[in-house]
Amino acid sequence: MTYYVGIDLGGTNIKAGIVDEKGTLLNKDSIKTMAERPMEEIITDMGKLALKVIEDAGLTPDQIDSIGIGSPGTPDNEAGVLVYSNNLPFNMAPMRKIIRSVVDLPVYIDNDANCAGMAEAVAGAAKGTKNSVTITLGTGVGAGVIINGRIYSGFNQAGSEFGHHVLVSGGVQCSCGRKGCFEQYGSASALIRMTKEAAEAHPESKLNDVIAELGKVNAKVAFMAMRLGDEVAAQVVDTYTDYLADGLANAINTFMPEVLVIGGGVCNEGDPLLIPLQEKTMSRPYFGPGVKKTRIELAQMGNDAGIVGAAMMAKSCSDDNMQG
Amino acid sequence: MTYYVGIDLGGTNIKAGIVDEKGTLLNKDSIKTMAERPMEEIITDMGKLALKVIEDAGLTPDQIDSIGIGSPGTPDNEAGVLVYSNNLPFNMAPMRKIIRSVVDLPVYIDNDANCAGMAEAVAGAAKGTKNSVTITLGTGVGAGVIINGRIYSGFNQAGSEFGHHVLVSGGVQCSCGRKGCFEQYGSASALIRMTKEAAEAHPESKLNDVIAELGKVNAKVAFMAMRLGDEVAAQVVDTYTDYLADGLANAINTFMPEVLVIGGGVCNEGDPLLIPLQEKTMSRPYFGPGVKKTRIELAQMGNDAGIVGAAMMAKSCSDDNMQG
Repeated sequence: MTYYVGIDLGGTNIKAGIVDEKGTLLNKDSIKTMAERPMEEIITDMGKLALKVIEDAGLTPDQIDSIGIGSPGTPDNEAGVLVYSNNLPFNMAPMRKIIRSVVDLPVYIDNDANCAGMAEAVAGAAKGTKNSVTITLGTGVGAGVIINGRIYSGFNQAGSEFGHHVLVSGGVQCSCGRKGCFEQYGSASALIRMTKEAAEAHPESKLNDVIAELGKVNAKVAFMAMRLGDEVAAQVVDTYTDYLADGLANAINTFMPEVLVIGGGVCNEGDPLLIPLQEKTMSRPYFGPGVKKTRIELAQMGNDAGIVGAAMMAKSCSDDNMQG
Repeated sequence: MTYYVGIDLGGTNIKAGIVDEKGTLLNKDSIKTMAERPMEEIITDMGKLALKVIEDAGLTPDQIDSIGIGSPGTPDNEAGVLVYSNNLPFNMAPMRKIIRSVVDLPVYIDNDANCAGMAEAVAGAAKGTKNSVTITLGTGVGAGVIINGRIYSGFNQAGSEFGHHVLVSGGVQCSCGRKGCFEQYGSASALIRMTKEAAEAHPESKLNDVIAELGKVNAKVAFMAMRLGDEVAAQVVDTYTDYLADGLANAINTFMPEVLVIGGGVCNEGDPLLIPLQEKTMSRPYFGPGVKKTRIELAQMGNDAGIVGAAMMAKSCSDDNMQG
């Protein structure tokens, strides 16, 4: 059996674990990122955490094939550098060099949304397929595109920013500068915005009672009130799934993946989200007669997607004899 | 030198030619499709045309590596079958079998928009790149996606139907059943619709004089009237390039290609189209600091794109040892 270290770098926590060649997570650990520190300190700690999970698994570094890092932002995997990251103090961060000074193994870097896609493709909802797209609905909308079993991240490794395709021309202002990006209609943040707007417009609704009880608006509130029979909340969910289905149908027409995986906290709603979403989405794409159709599935890898995906990304780079 | 036959199957004409391994077209010929005939007759004529261009080039079939067919619709290259085509009488058409009965060489089939992308990637505007997207603006909007030097057409070979991603939610009704597809805003047909609407709204404009003189509205009229100084026509071009740029920026964010190629008759307008389009498009995508940017180029392969692309598609299948 061959083993890999996967490191999931986030703004709050750094997680790492040992993953075998089939995508099974053997053990994991995490430390605080403390993102206000100099990047050299953070990266050194990533190396130390890798070493710790290797030892905790009862292994030695020479039993590990390589280390994969999933990070926000844009990597340069050839140079072993994180070019930049929106939320972290990384600017041309020499990750490979620093980590190799702590634990001298090949180091590969890719974007976290891409790694999530890789995890689903190897061991999750798209297991056994060569072509899949994983869309993660969170604060934003992330996309991990897998083509022929490899992460596709464009000529510049900037990855598919599918969340930033305009779906509603002239629509809601997006952080990227454009108006009407899919992210502004399909993310958890978008659902929260729609929930707030509906609650304000309908002060008499049960939706407001749920919000008052909870003391806040989150992405669950509309589903909670809908289950209590609230029409206003049902309308919010209907509008949200309508836009979401439009964006997902766009993803299908664009990539024609065997499986389209949707992940992120919103997906914990399960069938009340998935069933209408599948119906709405699959009525829209452009499949000709006799043409095989994409399946839509919920993500299965949960919180381990980042670690497992980073490790499996490292495996694919190692299998392709890339410089690490 | 290795030679390939490229066949470009269209609703009006069938074109074929001999192409060398570098994408150079040596000779070509064409016959009428006469699409109302039984599909067996049409396919047999494709085989005969292949034989004719081989002989016209002074070659014999044993000097040809393989035959590539670019066709509208969805192919099944593994089975050697055209699954269906919107505009032609093909339904599970056994192309490989029939053509091999005329000229016994490996036969590969792919979509015509994909072949156009392949032609640009091997010998045209995206020559020397591994990742490119060619968008063809015609009656509809076609997309040919090249990833790692290979056509990407999804798990079902249905290809990227990027023209059918919704750009204007709830917008103009599309033939695919959805509303607001990019095709309804970026195609030559869309430009003609916008031109007609503007001409009706502004009967005093020079745009109407140009239309009256020409006796019809085509995709050139707005550019012609704009060159005569007409403000109404300039506004049409501005609106059209705005939508087009939005769709192209979506393509960049989605695929991050090294080169985005735009083709189709509209592109004959040259700089008055390309320069504002490049400016508008490149102000929109989501490139982080330090990240390499996509180039936007006009297609270079013109009317030969179909033949050359089909031949180079055959080369890529043959290089990958696919069954032909």
